Amino acid sequence: MINIGIMGLGTVGTGVVELLEKNQHVISQRLGEAINVKKILVRDLSKKRTPCAEGKLTLRAEDILEDEEINIVVELMGGEEPAKSYIKKALQNKKHVVTANKEVISKHGKELFELAEKSGVSLLFEASVGGGIPIIRPMKQCLAANRILKISGILNGTTNYILTQMEEKGRNFEEALREAQRLGYAESDPSDDIKGFDAARKLAILSSIAFNTRITPDKVYVEGIERIEPEDIKYAGELGYSIKLVASARKVGEREIEVIVAPVMLKQSHPLSAVRDVYNAILVEGDAVGKVMFFGQGAGKMPTASAVVADIMDAARQGMRRRIYCTCYDELKVIDVGSSTSRFYIRLKAKDRPGVLSKISGAFGENDISLNMVIQKDVKGNVAEIVMVTHQVPFRNLQKALDEIKDLQDVENVANVIRVEGATSDGIHGNHR
Amino acid sequence: MINIGIMGLGTVGTGVVELLEKNQHVISQRLGEAINVKKILVRDLSKKRTPCAEGKLTLRAEDILEDEEINIVVELMGGEEPAKSYIKKALQNKKHVVTANKEVISKHGKELFELAEKSGVSLLFEASVGGGIPIIRPMKQCLAANRILKISGILNGTTNYILTQMEEKGRNFEEALREAQRLGYAESDPSDDIKGFDAARKLAILSSIAFNTRITPDKVYVEGIERIEPEDIKYAGELGYSIKLVASARKVGEREIEVIVAPVMLKQSHPLSAVRDVYNAILVEGDAVGKVMFFGQGAGKMPTASAVVADIMDAARQGMRRRIYCTCYDELKVIDVGSSTSRFYIRLKAKDRPGVLSKISGAFGENDISLNMVIQKDVKGNVAEIVMVTHQVPFRNLQKALDEIKDLQDVENVANVIRVEGATSDGIHGNHR
Repeated sequence: MINIGIMGLGTVGTGVVELLEKNQHVISQRLGEAINVKKILVRDLSKKRTPCAEGKLTLRAEDILEDEEINIVVELMGGEEPAKSYIKKALQNKKHVVTANKEVISKHGKELFELAEKSGVSLLFEASVGGGIPIIRPMKQCLAANRILKISGILNGTTNYILTQMEEKGRNFEEALREAQRLGYAESDPSDDIKGFDAARKLAILSSIAFNTRITPDKVYVEGIERIEPEDIKYAGELGYSIKLVASARKVGEREIEVIVAPVMLKQSHPLSAVRDVYNAILVEGDAVGKVMFFGQGAGKMPTASAVVADIMDAARQGMRRRIYCTCYDELKVIDVGSSTSRFYIRLKAKDRPGVLSKISGAFGENDISLNMVIQKDVKGNVAEIVMVTHQVPFRNLQKALDEIKDLQDVENVANVIRVEGATSDGIHGNHR
Repeated sequence: MINIGIMGLGTVGTGVVELLEKNQHVISQRLGEAINVKKILVRDLSKKRTPCAEGKLTLRAEDILEDEEINIVVELMGGEEPAKSYIKKALQNKKHVVTANKEVISKHGKELFELAEKSGVSLLFEASVGGGIPIIRPMKQCLAANRILKISGILNGTTNYILTQMEEKGRNFEEALREAQRLGYAESDPSDDIKGFDAARKLAILSSIAFNTRITPDKVYVEGIERIEPEDIKYAGELGYSIKLVASARKVGEREIEVIVAPVMLKQSHPLSAVRDVYNAILVEGDAVGKVMFFGQGAGKMPTASAVVADIMDAARQGMRRRIYCTCYDELKVIDVGSSTSRFYIRLKAKDRPGVLSKISGAFGENDISLNMVIQKDVKGNVAEIVMVTHQVPFRNLQKALDEIKDLQDVENVANVIRVEGATSDGIHGNHR
């Protein structure tokens, strides 16, 4: 029998305790041994809990961290502290640690993996990215023979739900956000999700594994979805694109990588564009395997518990002669986002007056930006909405051109700028009016 | 340094040798040790080979099987014999075995896994299903906390290419098959693929893992795609469906499972319906994780080599205290296909004469089959083509009704019968003429 201690009994913790109880038969058959939840750390003993937790609650972390019978500590408290200190203590005490904590792993992975290696125990974190979707272990093991060229994913269910609602129901951002909050898909303070920080942490974890180099969240260039307006969704649709919050990392040179979370217009034939609602998907491109995609529920009580319990079973199997510790043996440079090239969609408002378009085009031309398409959309009063799509350009050049364009007398504002996936397609033709 | 011996230097064998050479740096960094191909078994020493194989070829299996320095034997010959005997010998000699041989694993898995367990070595076979797509290890490890409810997949690239061509290019079956052969996607004798036997072997392997019960290929009910005609593709499209060769296994009772390979009409919103050309995908439904999907190239030199080398790396890590051996601890009954229920599409030809439809409907009614939809399609001469879709019925009842219908005087033939996925939808309305 394997004794485990669980720290934190929120949504995921409750799911883990319930899943271990419900599927105890298959779990012990597959593992060859039973798993016993010995203690559970909570902050409040009086709160109503799942019946599976009865008689196991404690308020003292030491009851788990110092218990010699507990082999595996499962950290499900979330947040940086005290979670990180507890994980450290557990590793120091030679206990395997299973965690779903993307914040701790993405920020402090290096220190913790080194500690795990020193103590000869496992630190497993499958549930920290993509909820129940198997992605960490497949990347570390099943794709280990590949040089990874690119990973791109929809890693945040909240923002994907909002964008799906905007696209399919014609809702605006605020309405879609309120709907997501009503359904429990978004927190009351949703900024971590909608500003892209949650996706950035997950991308930091995935790209550290993919490129064998430590990427912390502060190295990730992040744009959120809060500025996406119904007009952008509409024009994207007319051009055959869906807007998704895409987290992507790719090799751009032998020693350099690009790591970006930002809204991207994806061709409707792109595998990630079909990912709806709160689902997540991760597309991995390896030099041998080509493209493989992993798809499923990226969050939620039982999907996340599925990943946590799988890690517990793996830790219980332990004793691998060569455990997989930190795989960041390399040190690649993250390029400045200014150097990162993309196609861009630009929507701006300008006076509907002769010569305006030529001034705008001039600013692009001076910054070496060639345009794939210019469409004049609605004219309201004497103000026209203009949509442009560029060929591939460095972000830096685009920013410079836009600064100049904002200063033009007849330009009211630059309403939005969104990356557009893929090489310039000949198939896109503007619908000039 | 880990010494390995490779048996068979065809397409996949060549890919493995080349991948080990090309990515030797990342492989040895990630593994913590280098992999050395010591010997390669071939049938012909004079054939031109990849430069990576130089100086390593042998005609004698014993050179690998009896070499005490070789820890891992990689069997890539394909076919039942002598592959199976070599694998047995290697396991008896306490060497880990990595294989891509779906025939040997699906038919003789039980015997071989027992032998591996007895010898305390690993028998790994990730490449036997879905080429480079990680699916065996994710099912055995990442989803191990789940009771699997259903797996369904597109497991054969050749047939999926043919069906994609028929749907998108309007080709008939023979044209699409010739195109697949021209591109090297189909063998000169394609019957193993198009009759569904290749998919059945892969499904036998996946369902053995999913349901912890030994399923051999002879337990799988198999229909191929050779009878699909352009009319079926066309009518499916009109109803909002794509036809795919789907391999599926699901629990139908506490102790019973249904295991079927057959063409199925999938709603165009179904995740598997978007899988085009030679791509494969596997959808797994677990009680905790919900639906997860794995997608990628299901065959080919380098994708398959990617999976084989990952297994080699895993075997090299070996020494897990509790290795994962055969997980078939249960013995579930495969139900007779006659008891398996589905909706069915039926296309038949009958004289365009009063009363015909009432006789046909009568035969269905007498066998407890209710129809969701009846459409009379083209009338040529005095013969009408009639398309019907049933509600959920046991296959047995359908077969009985069709036997009676075939005997009706005015019925020329039953041109095709295809399973239709999902519960009856209210959204389907016939386009009666």
